[in-house]
Amino acid sequence: MDLKRILSPIEKDIEIVEELIYKNLENRIGLIQEIGKHIFGSGGKRLRPTLTILSCKYYNIKDPVIYELATAIEYIHTATLLHDDVVDNSELRRGKETANILWGNQAPVLVGDYLFAKAFILMVKSNNLKILDLLSNVTGLLAQGEIFELVKTGDLNTTIEEYFEIIEEKTGVLISAAAQIGPIMAGASEVEIKIFKNYGENIGIAFQLVDDALDYISTDKVLGKKIGIDIREGKVTLPLICALEKNDNQEIRDIFYKDELTEDDIEKIRKFVIENNGIEITFDYANKYVKKAVDELEKLNKNQFVEILENLAHFITARRY
Amino acid sequence: MDLKRILSPIEKDIEIVEELIYKNLENRIGLIQEIGKHIFGSGGKRLRPTLTILSCKYYNIKDPVIYELATAIEYIHTATLLHDDVVDNSELRRGKETANILWGNQAPVLVGDYLFAKAFILMVKSNNLKILDLLSNVTGLLAQGEIFELVKTGDLNTTIEEYFEIIEEKTGVLISAAAQIGPIMAGASEVEIKIFKNYGENIGIAFQLVDDALDYISTDKVLGKKIGIDIREGKVTLPLICALEKNDNQEIRDIFYKDELTEDDIEKIRKFVIENNGIEITFDYANKYVKKAVDELEKLNKNQFVEILENLAHFITARRY
Repeated sequence: MDLKRILSPIEKDIEIVEELIYKNLENRIGLIQEIGKHIFGSGGKRLRPTLTILSCKYYNIKDPVIYELATAIEYIHTATLLHDDVVDNSELRRGKETANILWGNQAPVLVGDYLFAKAFILMVKSNNLKILDLLSNVTGLLAQGEIFELVKTGDLNTTIEEYFEIIEEKTGVLISAAAQIGPIMAGASEVEIKIFKNYGENIGIAFQLVDDALDYISTDKVLGKKIGIDIREGKVTLPLICALEKNDNQEIRDIFYKDELTEDDIEKIRKFVIENNGIEITFDYANKYVKKAVDELEKLNKNQFVEILENLAHFITARRY
Repeated sequence: MDLKRILSPIEKDIEIVEELIYKNLENRIGLIQEIGKHIFGSGGKRLRPTLTILSCKYYNIKDPVIYELATAIEYIHTATLLHDDVVDNSELRRGKETANILWGNQAPVLVGDYLFAKAFILMVKSNNLKILDLLSNVTGLLAQGEIFELVKTGDLNTTIEEYFEIIEEKTGVLISAAAQIGPIMAGASEVEIKIFKNYGENIGIAFQLVDDALDYISTDKVLGKKIGIDIREGKVTLPLICALEKNDNQEIRDIFYKDELTEDDIEKIRKFVIENNGIEITFDYANKYVKKAVDELEKLNKNQFVEILENLAHFITARRY
């Protein structure tokens, strides 16, 4: 089962969004387009626009503003990527050098701001205050989740609850919002909006769980960035939390708190996490969240778009990149 | 004539905004409040909220959402300050150490994003799509102006036209938007909105011109930041552009392009700019823009709030901090 096949019924729609992503970057200042092309051109799964399109197709919404909303959501996501890479001093994303490595920190901070602003300009075009309310709140939660993650960086006493708070805000809410565009645009009931909200939130969390697991077990090449990057950056994610819960190893704690970690140190922590079921437990959680997402879909009328949403949910835990 | 006296009729209103500025920072994550309090507590003239209040008072608007809009605009402004200080590696703002010096670059980038988001949340509360359209576009222009400024950094061939493009976007448009809230909320005619728009744009440009002049002639203590900071950062502003236009001095050009500038180098450039009328010409421009702003006000019905707007315009070129 490959993603491209799953999504073939909305291939044309995704192409429209893709065009809008580039069209809205057009600007007399070359640097904006340059950085924009760099980050949008380096792949990316376009998961959020895909969910927006699917939720709108379910309600058979023809209004072309949905493509602008899908673009807006991808812009918000990308703005946070640009800022995250500055915050984390990241060197690679999707197999390419990050914007901060290529242009320094300044331009990516400002181009991120520009994308946020463009997202709001596009959103306002919907003339839909409910959507504006949702997306502005979600943008706030996103920033909040990232600040909380920063605060908890380097803290091995981060609890499972705190971890889930972080990933819900930094990843869950925007994916959830993307999935709510359809029912809100269609004027669906609160109950139906809630179904899409829960579906999105659950796959969003599952997505982040898999991301955090793959950071321990994938390879640099497959992932398009260095593996073990979370340990390097002092980020305490579920695999490590669970492994330490099972086996509160003082040596691992000491290594983690060293000022500089060697490649050997990172390898030791990785091994420890794998041997103490950190990855297994994380995937178990991810599967649980995928199941929750799929269960939500049961409440909808079955049609081909619900089927795609279901396949997409299963794809989350199947992915290895 | 002091600013406090000029603004005494709207003192209470400014207090309400001041409270909202802090109230909307409340968050379970201490760091958000901490950085917020630091930057909002370090003074700042609240010029933008003042303009919003005055323009609303002119139309006798009683809707309390105007305070939320004033807060939103100050949040947008402050978010750009946080990001600017990261971009410029600034050490001092308003006489206090900058957030990036105290917390590193990471937190100020994310708290800036949080303020942008909060601004949009507050704006959406107005339920006024015209205001949302204005403020989202203005936020885009703001970022664009800052990116253009970054691109032109270190370029002594920056033209007067390019300089004005930069300051119009990075300073003029938000101040102008702040002044348009009243007529838009009141449903005034496009002609009247335009009057406030032009007034705001002109005082905004005048404000930036004075800022750029003071960077050459004020003192560290009065300014609350180092003087000569623009030269240090390679920013080519009007005083230098005009001085070089009068006297295209190769020695000054060579100093400017040195990798590291000594205090002596900066002093040489400062002297050169002053001796070649760079400051005088810049203040002449500022006065011209203030006059344009005041002329716009003539088209309005005279009342005490128009009078305050007029005094405020004159205050811009009178200020020495």
